[in-house]
Amino acid sequence: MCGIVGIVGKSDVNLQLYDALTILQHRGQDAAGIMTCDGGKLAQQKANGLVKDVFRTRHMQRLVGNIGIGHVRYPTAGSSGPALAQPFYVNSPYGIALAHNGNLTNADQLSEELFKTDLRHVNTDSDSEVLLNVFAHELQSQGKLQPNEDDIFEAIAGVHRRVSGGYAVVSMIARYGLIAFRDPNGIRPLVYGKRETEGGVEYMVASESVALDVLGFDLIADVAPGEAIYITAEGELHRRQCAENTRLRPCIFEHVYFARPDSIMDGISVYKARLRQGEKLAEKILRERPDHDIDVVVPIPDSSRVAGQALAYNLGVKFREGLVKNRYIGRTFIMPGQQQRKKSVRQKLNAIELEFRGKNVLLVDDSIVRGTTCQQIIEMARDAGAAKVYFASAAPPVIYPNVYGIDMPTVKELIAHGRSHEEICREIGADWLIYQDLEDLVAASAEGTRKVTEFDCAVFNGEYVTGDVDDAYLEKLEAERNDGAKSNAHKKAAKPEGTLIGLHNDVAENP
Amino acid sequence: MCGIVGIVGKSDVNLQLYDALTILQHRGQDAAGIMTCDGGKLAQQKANGLVKDVFRTRHMQRLVGNIGIGHVRYPTAGSSGPALAQPFYVNSPYGIALAHNGNLTNADQLSEELFKTDLRHVNTDSDSEVLLNVFAHELQSQGKLQPNEDDIFEAIAGVHRRVSGGYAVVSMIARYGLIAFRDPNGIRPLVYGKRETEGGVEYMVASESVALDVLGFDLIADVAPGEAIYITAEGELHRRQCAENTRLRPCIFEHVYFARPDSIMDGISVYKARLRQGEKLAEKILRERPDHDIDVVVPIPDSSRVAGQALAYNLGVKFREGLVKNRYIGRTFIMPGQQQRKKSVRQKLNAIELEFRGKNVLLVDDSIVRGTTCQQIIEMARDAGAAKVYFASAAPPVIYPNVYGIDMPTVKELIAHGRSHEEICREIGADWLIYQDLEDLVAASAEGTRKVTEFDCAVFNGEYVTGDVDDAYLEKLEAERNDGAKSNAHKKAAKPEGTLIGLHNDVAENP
Amino acid sequence: MCGIVGIVGKSDVNLQLYDALTILQHRGQDAAGIMTCDGGKLAQQKANGLVKDVFRTRHMQRLVGNIGIGHVRYPTAGSSGPALAQPFYVNSPYGIALAHNGNLTNADQLSEELFKTDLRHVNTDSDSEVLLNVFAHELQSQGKLQPNEDDIFEAIAGVHRRVSGGYAVVSMIARYGLIAFRDPNGIRPLVYGKRETEGGVEYMVASESVALDVLGFDLIADVAPGEAIYITAEGELHRRQCAENTRLRPCIFEHVYFARPDSIMDGISVYKARLRQGEKLAEKILRERPDHDIDVVVPIPDSSRVAGQALAYNLGVKFREGLVKNRYIGRTFIMPGQQQRKKSVRQKLNAIELEFRGKNVLLVDDSIVRGTTCQQIIEMARDAGAAKVYFASAAPPVIYPNVYGIDMPTVKELIAHGRSHEEICREIGADWLIYQDLEDLVAASAEGTRKVTEFDCAVFNGEYVTGDVDDAYLEKLEAERNDGAKSNAHKKAAKPEGTLIGLHNDVAENP
Amino acid sequence: MCGIVGIVGKSDVNLQLYDALTILQHRGQDAAGIMTCDGGKLAQQKANGLVKDVFRTRHMQRLVGNIGIGHVRYPTAGSSGPALAQPFYVNSPYGIALAHNGNLTNADQLSEELFKTDLRHVNTDSDSEVLLNVFAHELQSQGKLQPNEDDIFEAIAGVHRRVSGGYAVVSMIARYGLIAFRDPNGIRPLVYGKRETEGGVEYMVASESVALDVLGFDLIADVAPGEAIYITAEGELHRRQCAENTRLRPCIFEHVYFARPDSIMDGISVYKARLRQGEKLAEKILRERPDHDIDVVVPIPDSSRVAGQALAYNLGVKFREGLVKNRYIGRTFIMPGQQQRKKSVRQKLNAIELEFRGKNVLLVDDSIVRGTTCQQIIEMARDAGAAKVYFASAAPPVIYPNVYGIDMPTVKELIAHGRSHEEICREIGADWLIYQDLEDLVAASAEGTRKVTEFDCAVFNGEYVTGDVDDAYLEKLEAERNDGAKSNAHKKAAKPEGTLIGLHNDVAENP
Repeated sequence: MCGIVGIVGKSDVNLQLYDALTILQHRGQDAAGIMTCDGGKLAQQKANGLVKDVFRTRHMQRLVGNIGIGHVRYPTAGSSGPALAQPFYVNSPYGIALAHNGNLTNADQLSEELFKTDLRHVNTDSDSEVLLNVFAHELQSQGKLQPNEDDIFEAIAGVHRRVSGGYAVVSMIARYGLIAFRDPNGIRPLVYGKRETEGGVEYMVASESVALDVLGFDLIADVAPGEAIYITAEGELHRRQCAENTRLRPCIFEHVYFARPDSIMDGISVYKARLRQGEKLAEKILRERPDHDIDVVVPIPDSSRVAGQALAYNLGVKFREGLVKNRYIGRTFIMPGQQQRKKSVRQKLNAIELEFRGKNVLLVDDSIVRGTTCQQIIEMARDAGAAKVYFASAAPPVIYPNVYGIDMPTVKELIAHGRSHEEICREIGADWLIYQDLEDLVAASAEGTRKVTEFDCAVFNGEYVTGDVDDAYLEKLEAERNDGAKSNAHKKAAKPEGTLIGLHNDVAENP
Repeated sequence: MCGIVGIVGKSDVNLQLYDALTILQHRGQDAAGIMTCDGGKLAQQKANGLVKDVFRTRHMQRLVGNIGIGHVRYPTAGSSGPALAQPFYVNSPYGIALAHNGNLTNADQLSEELFKTDLRHVNTDSDSEVLLNVFAHELQSQGKLQPNEDDIFEAIAGVHRRVSGGYAVVSMIARYGLIAFRDPNGIRPLVYGKRETEGGVEYMVASESVALDVLGFDLIADVAPGEAIYITAEGELHRRQCAENTRLRPCIFEHVYFARPDSIMDGISVYKARLRQGEKLAEKILRERPDHDIDVVVPIPDSSRVAGQALAYNLGVKFREGLVKNRYIGRTFIMPGQQQRKKSVRQKLNAIELEFRGKNVLLVDDSIVRGTTCQQIIEMARDAGAAKVYFASAAPPVIYPNVYGIDMPTVKELIAHGRSHEEICREIGADWLIYQDLEDLVAASAEGTRKVTEFDCAVFNGEYVTGDVDDAYLEKLEAERNDGAKSNAHKKAAKPEGTLIGLHNDVAENP
Repeated sequence: MCGIVGIVGKSDVNLQLYDALTILQHRGQDAAGIMTCDGGKLAQQKANGLVKDVFRTRHMQRLVGNIGIGHVRYPTAGSSGPALAQPFYVNSPYGIALAHNGNLTNADQLSEELFKTDLRHVNTDSDSEVLLNVFAHELQSQGKLQPNEDDIFEAIAGVHRRVSGGYAVVSMIARYGLIAFRDPNGIRPLVYGKRETEGGVEYMVASESVALDVLGFDLIADVAPGEAIYITAEGELHRRQCAENTRLRPCIFEHVYFARPDSIMDGISVYKARLRQGEKLAEKILRERPDHDIDVVVPIPDSSRVAGQALAYNLGVKFREGLVKNRYIGRTFIMPGQQQRKKSVRQKLNAIELEFRGKNVLLVDDSIVRGTTCQQIIEMARDAGAAKVYFASAAPPVIYPNVYGIDMPTVKELIAHGRSHEEICREIGADWLIYQDLEDLVAASAEGTRKVTEFDCAVFNGEYVTGDVDDAYLEKLEAERNDGAKSNAHKKAAKPEGTLIGLHNDVAENP
Repeated sequence: MCGIVGIVGKSDVNLQLYDALTILQHRGQDAAGIMTCDGGKLAQQKANGLVKDVFRTRHMQRLVGNIGIGHVRYPTAGSSGPALAQPFYVNSPYGIALAHNGNLTNADQLSEELFKTDLRHVNTDSDSEVLLNVFAHELQSQGKLQPNEDDIFEAIAGVHRRVSGGYAVVSMIARYGLIAFRDPNGIRPLVYGKRETEGGVEYMVASESVALDVLGFDLIADVAPGEAIYITAEGELHRRQCAENTRLRPCIFEHVYFARPDSIMDGISVYKARLRQGEKLAEKILRERPDHDIDVVVPIPDSSRVAGQALAYNLGVKFREGLVKNRYIGRTFIMPGQQQRKKSVRQKLNAIELEFRGKNVLLVDDSIVRGTTCQQIIEMARDAGAAKVYFASAAPPVIYPNVYGIDMPTVKELIAHGRSHEEICREIGADWLIYQDLEDLVAASAEGTRKVTEFDCAVFNGEYVTGDVDDAYLEKLEAERNDGAKSNAHKKAAKPEGTLIGLHNDVAENP
């Protein structure tokens, strides 16, 4: 998961990109980057770390220009070196920068094509570098000295033809303008908006509408599946559908966990969707145990609070902050002669005994993935004196890997993989376990709009909307993960981490 | 406000001090420091910044020894240079380190005495350096080669005789042990506990019990007002009452805002006190407007959530997270040729329109100090479409300055100073304003224990428990603040900030 | 002036490149960079600063691979931003890195061509980025999936056809190998050598032979003017003449000042050339003043010591270290309210009175450029009591700008520009001024070999060997310098320095 | 060996202290520190590293005040942690800072006394901290609120009575002034001077006169053995002899190696002393081998150049820079899976074959200590084709340890210890070895003045001028060195280096 933003303004856009990335920081805390364009010159700053740490005054002073794009990265398997911070850049043709949110399912094949057919060197394992080079190659193929909107949209159509997966993209062509497009299924979110200023109309694209809100831009619309937006350096907006067979099937996990509640995605208020998740969970509980003995609903902070409030209210049970989150997390030091100490859940959460002692407590979380944290919190609740500990998940069991940009553990690490409901309940140590039903989860989101009737729910039901993800693919993925882990371990023995660091941000130490 | 901790362990205590400071970080995010003692040698690391940034592996490796103390500092007027990070140290007699939470009301007079009578050089404006030198002088006066518990307690008695104000102190004498004491009114909190290990019993003192909990120490008791604890390097615990006329009157603002809800202070659960604050507010509302038209209760995150939940529950009204806090705050850059942009409330909070549009909303906060944030949030609520905006404060109006260690704006900046209830309501733009009554606030805390019958409520009622704070003192304080601001402004023109930086942490750059 | 190096080894070459750059550091202290290639992946580290400061262990750990190139940069007008550290990189075709020493005289025209014809974006003002893109374009034009030596040499021939100026180049093509070539006049130096190891033969190219010596490589030869070397990743060496009308006319300033004395360039020992410079100066002195009254010869440390020793010996006069160089230079602080203090010659040199008091002293320097330092040292000699102060320059008067990579002040700043011999003597305050004759300077170098009969002596005689430097060119250069200075001054007011920093080393803070 | 400086000025002295430390940097490159006093407040910056790296603008801005002291440290056994950077500080009495050059021979005994009798905690192994605390205790014993010159001189007399060894000291008492004194034998150098300014007379003390020269101060005199200087904050100078039985016996090694040639010490020009060393060596050579076959004299850069020039001139032989020093030294990286590579002499020096091939070369160095470098250079000379390699040492054989502040290897590592002249010659591989005779060395210095008739020559003759250094002392020293090495090795296994880091510069990371 990542966050992206792009602005074509009437004055320097660096501070606005910075603020937007801060607002999108929940989508990725691993690395951040901004590129801007001033006349024909590009400027860039990217590094591992939080937005507030990556950009210093000296960087902002260099990031001049009224066009720019930005990116925050979530740490995913095989993408966490500083060399992989985005945006990426190629100088031929024109000078193009690009950042994306998502994952390509045919990156390996594309990478080989790029080298063999297009003579392009891809220096990292990032599919963003692949995507950028495919786009660059398509543009170069047009051979125009000055590309116009038709050339650009044609190149994007070429990208859609070659590329498969989930992707929301912002790109910038030096001298020409800002580009944004979304995959034909609209798996990853992307919105755009505008703002009137004294200097004229400014445009902004972003992963979530909340970034537009806070910066004072008015939402125009979601970028449609397969649609592309091109805003020239002068501020002229062009739109075009560049893909065939498009169909809006956004990732439902945004509504479960990733998106900020104050965002509106494809017409759906995330906040409302979560309230409805809580309401539907309440209905299920009342349906399954009309005479339940729940004394109090305690959310696991922070992501399940909204669903938890609706759940408690609809159950007619007290809603209480029984778990206090430690906002300040220290690092783990490795001292000579000591074993590495695991920072356990105990250092992140503390139970208020009053709300547990002698009570039947319903803990609520947004979802259960590995189940380990969940298991520790249940134990903590028992230590705090809970009579009975029930556990509700606002999402159904997570059984399949995500291949469209959400980092998940391998299938075997998913607690729900290959286990019955009872086995999971026993494994996490709960007295009762309630999972949201998938149809309820979908309904909780779908009720918010007429626009969306389908979602990518692959992690729950194994149905991958791009159609190219079969058992063989998943097995290969699992094997690569395992091999990757092994070969990484091997590499680390031989060579230190970061050996194959790329070029563009070679010096990208965390500042 | 600050947080302090001290441990006498059976092995290196650096990692535990680090974890404890992380847990106490909410008491001070401005600076942090640790000193440890290994045999006769002391080691120290302190600097401006969060705990996670101040201590690196190289520092932890130096901080060896089974005795140590730590400190986190809240930025208060005139105390924010890196030279003022604690603990402080003097080498004569014995080698003594000290850190404290609180404020001395006679620091100026003591500072002069130290120089004139005791020939001691105090290099900073910190009252902690004064307190340390008074203690050092009292110990030196005993003239013992090897001080025993009687000498130490006698020196502390001497400190109590000379010093006035609110103070909770941890100190460490090289080779000898750890010392902790609390002022005769017990204004600032201090608890101690123990833990059985294979190597023997370990002791810990800390500002809040939650630090003991998370580290696995069992609470023994609060340090009583005027009481001192001395734990020898070998782990022997001594306790003694070292002050006359003691009377427990802890600061009630800990229960309103500062303390973590999961702490227990002088026998009172902070969490329960806050629930009762909400309940009592509900009673007052129902009393004043039995037929109120409140549709929803929205807390201002994060500190008012507990009181808000009880308030909503007792009113029988929905409790909703209508304001989303931006967890990631960026810095404010000063770009050439631009005006400094104020990071307004809008960049910290975002309203979810659904919970405001057309509704009568009751916003709850823990207290109202300057009133500016409060005013902006009310405006935000109106922009989000609220029909009516009501505002409840879990604490009474703040009218007086705090002189015992809580940093407050000057009297004139307090919105409640010199304004009627109606004027305040108008100023913040609310349709209705409800303040907690002081007796209710006191009752909310006092109901939790028989131990405490009085509190320091000076910020609400102007009654200063140390008896030496009169109008003249307050006027001088106000004047110093103003002069300080002015002379600072002047100094900055002539010389850059930090000119008179002290010795012990001369190189205390923020890491 | 810059230093370049390239190695194709049988194991990781990072440490050897590092050592080589340290040895070549006298050719550039402004910035340093290394790129290596491991299989198909490139790694890079470059930043402003000395070699010892630019590369940390973490960088070396990333710089893996048995092929690599390195660069040290001299600060020249318009090239001192961190974005301009070399090597540069383009990913299309193949992935190519390049670093060079020299200056292109038609960079502006090439830059425009690149954009208009080749659709390549050049993001900096560096002629190295231009050179790289010309080379990349020539290679791409061949359209080969796997370029062989013929393709590469053909591309280099294309470069020679398009490019004009002085340039010694190292380049690396990912997967394929190392390339080195020198301009058709051989203005800038370049040598190559080999070393037998257990793993096989290793090759190295470098600006100066001393780098080969210290690393244990045996000099094979100088790269001939217009010649190119291609060493495949497997270690196969190919050579080819790629230019027409070549003629060896190396820059004589290398022998005067830049090169290390222990280097051999185009067959000439720099040390011997400098000894002969001293001898010829002695002859001229004896010729002009057979009965001179010189008591002692004092060199201006460090560059004139060799010539000075020969001069003194041949005059039969004592040679004494009368000027002590302060090896440690502090920075200049700008304190508020103070004027910036100029670090004058006095802080760099100190005169030993004994060698000056009452004596007739002959000071020797390698050359006189601006004349300001020279003038201050003469004043210092008088202050130390010298009876008479004579000044000898081992080079003739510097009258013209250098356009092949040596940074010189603008023509108007050259003391010898537009002044007679007497005027210069008076301006620097000497009692007698002796310049080397140009024919003697040339002879001092030419006597060392039969290979070289001509040199680029343009700074002395205004004859530019590339034939494209006319008065119009020089006037444009002067104007640009002036405009550059002015527009820089203007830019700095509006935007801070480094605004238009390029991409490849955007985060290139000095470490 | 260390360098010290102190200034009482009429405006801020920070920049001048900085410049002075830069000029004295040759006396210590390991650490640097400055303390200044502004009114009653002290400011400090000290850290490991060169002067240019230790002090940044932000530090200089804090170092305000018109009184200050500074220190540069040479890395000596057991003194190289950052905690040991000087000046040191105690706050009782008055606030005193101190820095010194030298070594106390009774530090252990004093350290125990301080703890047992004076109740003072000494937190490091530095004898400077001991010296400071002895001085502080002596001052405190006077018990004066405002110490005058008599109190201060009396305290210094007390220091002389208790302390033994070689020491040159600068100290600063907050509010009162600057103090400087020298041990009763004047082993370590110390001079003072003055400068007239518009604001009045400014005073400066420094280890070497060259610091006064460059800053424009006029030398008044050397501080006499046992003499103390006290300059009040107001700029009043007081002098007094504070020791009995004083006798000037300065360390002759300053003239051999440590001091800058442009310094004058106790009336002796170091430059002249070195010229005479060369002349006397020439005499000895001509005496021993009147018909020597030396073709050329080559100095080992940089310290033997002056003696070498006189030697060559008096022999009538050419003097040539046959060894080129690499001015830029890189670091040694430890790469995984590689053995640490020793940076050998080859990376520091390069021989110019022309001056060696077929010639009889006389290499000159200032002295021979371990003999290893010497042996490698001789080998290098042979590799460069030398027919015969002769070696001259401007100092006699080094046989004994230094106990007055010069760091030497242990006795057993000294090549001349226990070896005959022939054995040494064979060990280093020379064809002929010439050592200066001790009487000639002494004469070379003594001929420069009538003031000094004796020198501390203990490293050559084992006669320690303080009278308290006997065989038992030396054996203990040797044992401690060995134990220290061993226990260090042991400690490093258990705990990382720097465990017992002191307080005053806890955060003294190399900047």
